[in-house]
Amino acid sequence: MTEVRYRSDIDVELIDHMGGDHSIVRAARVSSGTAGTPEKDRGLLNMLARDRHGSPFESVVLQFKVECPIFVAREWFRHRVSSFNETSGRYKVLEPEFYEPHGGRPMRQIGQPGKYAFEEGAYEQKVQVKAAHKRLATWAWDEYTEMLDAGIAREVARNVLPLSLYTSFFWTVNLRSAMNFLSLRWAHEESTVPTFPLYEIQQGAMKVEEHAQAIAPIAMEMFNKHGRVSP
Amino acid sequence: MTEVRYRSDIDVELIDHMGGDHSIVRAARVSSGTAGTPEKDRGLLNMLARDRHGSPFESVVLQFKVECPIFVAREWFRHRVSSFNETSGRYKVLEPEFYEPHGGRPMRQIGQPGKYAFEEGAYEQKVQVKAAHKRLATWAWDEYTEMLDAGIAREVARNVLPLSLYTSFFWTVNLRSAMNFLSLRWAHEESTVPTFPLYEIQQGAMKVEEHAQAIAPIAMEMFNKHGRVSP
Amino acid sequence: MTEVRYRSDIDVELIDHMGGDHSIVRAARVSSGTAGTPEKDRGLLNMLARDRHGSPFESVVLQFKVECPIFVAREWFRHRVSSFNETSGRYKVLEPEFYEPHGGRPMRQIGQPGKYAFEEGAYEQKVQVKAAHKRLATWAWDEYTEMLDAGIAREVARNVLPLSLYTSFFWTVNLRSAMNFLSLRWAHEESTVPTFPLYEIQQGAMKVEEHAQAIAPIAMEMFNKHGRVSP
Amino acid sequence: MTEVRYRSDIDVELIDHMGGDHSIVRAARVSSGTAGTPEKDRGLLNMLARDRHGSPFESVVLQFKVECPIFVAREWFRHRVSSFNETSGRYKVLEPEFYEPHGGRPMRQIGQPGKYAFEEGAYEQKVQVKAAHKRLATWAWDEYTEMLDAGIAREVARNVLPLSLYTSFFWTVNLRSAMNFLSLRWAHEESTVPTFPLYEIQQGAMKVEEHAQAIAPIAMEMFNKHGRVSP
Repeated sequence: MTEVRYRSDIDVELIDHMGGDHSIVRAARVSSGTAGTPEKDRGLLNMLARDRHGSPFESVVLQFKVECPIFVAREWFRHRVSSFNETSGRYKVLEPEFYEPHGGRPMRQIGQPGKYAFEEGAYEQKVQVKAAHKRLATWAWDEYTEMLDAGIAREVARNVLPLSLYTSFFWTVNLRSAMNFLSLRWAHEESTVPTFPLYEIQQGAMKVEEHAQAIAPIAMEMFNKHGRVSP
Repeated sequence: MTEVRYRSDIDVELIDHMGGDHSIVRAARVSSGTAGTPEKDRGLLNMLARDRHGSPFESVVLQFKVECPIFVAREWFRHRVSSFNETSGRYKVLEPEFYEPHGGRPMRQIGQPGKYAFEEGAYEQKVQVKAAHKRLATWAWDEYTEMLDAGIAREVARNVLPLSLYTSFFWTVNLRSAMNFLSLRWAHEESTVPTFPLYEIQQGAMKVEEHAQAIAPIAMEMFNKHGRVSP
Repeated sequence: MTEVRYRSDIDVELIDHMGGDHSIVRAARVSSGTAGTPEKDRGLLNMLARDRHGSPFESVVLQFKVECPIFVAREWFRHRVSSFNETSGRYKVLEPEFYEPHGGRPMRQIGQPGKYAFEEGAYEQKVQVKAAHKRLATWAWDEYTEMLDAGIAREVARNVLPLSLYTSFFWTVNLRSAMNFLSLRWAHEESTVPTFPLYEIQQGAMKVEEHAQAIAPIAMEMFNKHGRVSP
Repeated sequence: MTEVRYRSDIDVELIDHMGGDHSIVRAARVSSGTAGTPEKDRGLLNMLARDRHGSPFESVVLQFKVECPIFVAREWFRHRVSSFNETSGRYKVLEPEFYEPHGGRPMRQIGQPGKYAFEEGAYEQKVQVKAAHKRLATWAWDEYTEMLDAGIAREVARNVLPLSLYTSFFWTVNLRSAMNFLSLRWAHEESTVPTFPLYEIQQGAMKVEEHAQAIAPIAMEMFNKHGRVSP
């Protein structure tokens, strides 16, 4: 019998990329025609982020492979200015990987005492949440595999799988659109945008940001400096 | 105890719209400046569809409310040139409506004897599919409501719900983008685009087409005439 | 001989529209499922604008006919999340309408004493600007019509026409994208976005805003209240 | 006095790129999970182009620097699924480079005996066209520089310049969107799309295609094989 596996992480692997700080500067300089020094390049990137001259940031393109539960992927796919290719439950047999809330630090708050209030949750709540996730995962996986064994179509059998199932997708996105994603999916302390992202997608956003910082460090510094608003 | 409900339909209600055949003609005439008769309007719509002058078709906008299972919504949301607002499992308690494959005519093929071959399926397969969908729906709904009763966050509890859960969303789309949707999500006999849509989204596409035909009948006639390729 | 005509205005006529404040509220309520009173609707629109929940604003669609010089149209067409249909110099003989800077109030500043400094300009400068615009318009129009008379292709003859030539286009845009346009093309006193739009496109933006206010007054009030940032 | 220069070419320089045939295959394989051999990769690319599975082609991104007359750039900028950064007549003094129809082979047809009929044109027509382009270019340039010398704003003085003025811009575009551009802007003999592009933009499209072929040769072969329709 297949072993069902559990994960709590959001995995974001950098697959490919184009450009960096220099590409943004190069594209912006087409407009003004001025020459640059490293100091002037910093100043230009600062001005572009501050004054919302967004299009030069589209000269940097990132491609990621993301592994996350379906309930996270559903939010991610709302970002229309980017490209997606996802594992298909119609074309392949899916993998038995499911989400369970992790108990590490920082912790996923599982209690909701009021309409918009969250708290860590009591021990019994944690036990119940973990058990419920595991029961549904194993029950659903058993039904799924039994249907496949009985010759039932993959695209029908997968309907019983829960939103906690892991999926994987390629995400191609330019830096401007990635900044918009970050402004909405990470309630960063330097952010001026009021946003209340889902805990799990924020874990993914943090990893996207790390990759973006490695590729375009000055652009990302200016994004932070000017309130983390997409330019 | 809450009664779990089952549906097999994809519901597509027209909420609002802008324009019609006349808007497409009016926008196209800005380019050429020619005056029109009804006969010439037909000819113009024919030429626009045939020669892929797509932008005038963006003058017609449709807004729908769609009710469908999540596994259908996930495909629908891949159509990026349009707008979505969906029921949120973070902000509200969800409704206990679940999908089960229907047994009517035309029938959902549930058997998959080969990698890309489908068939109606044997009686025992149908029994198994229905039972599996119902078992998972009730089990998941019980766990979901018990978690909510125990004060666990909505956005955590909903993770156990299956892809067969119904969701609802508003979809705002211009006619050009709707034609692209129709070309990919309906394996229509007059189509020249090889496409193998999921049965359930095709049921939704048929309803989208009915509404589009009522609003822009000549444009839709020309779309069909020229191979159902998005102009 | 054809009379060459001069204009200074940017004309923005509302041709069609879909929805209003109620559509934004209706789309947003799909997510939360709450019922509404007029007072709660205001509160919801306030929250949507403040917290950058942008997609419900895409439920309102506006279609305009714009008449403006080509140098203005070139900036307008940079707004990619919208639809354009423009008069074509390939398919029709163009109209002899040209821009000249107007002398009314508020006045187009024509002097540029420093790199980013503007001033009203001296009398002699105004005379020179008007005369130069008129000389080029008449010279270019004469060459254009002479080439057409000699059987030369419209799409070749039009190359000699200046950027001051008026063009006209249909612009279909949802309210969210229109707000983005307004945030960048109008240096409004309540704006928190540093932007230095071209004088002439700002005149157009002001008219777009008037139409938007008539169609979705509360949404536009909240757009202003929250710093005129596109949600 | 500044020397006015004349050009007839459309220059398309590759500045940067991401990926190639392998990226398309890699992104597509996320869906199906199958392994690949070179032979299977060809087959996969063939199937993707044939069946309009377009999104994997978005894994290849190209960045070009384009130099062309404004009347060509205006058509280029209609392609909304891509990024542009253009020389600004507001921020810099423009260069005195102007278009004139070239007399080489293949030849720009300048005669238009009927509404949609073109012909090479008689000797006198060619002389008139060249002379008209040159007269307007020199007259406009003289007025432009005289206005700048008199302290008149760059953004006002440039209004008198003709559509034949050269501009330059960075264009970042994924391969799918580039294929759409090619399907509309090149009346290629293997194309199944009826299209009548402007001669000059077709010269640019040919160069875009050369670069795309060098970067993703199999993808481009399949694009040609299946009627040059954007997948």
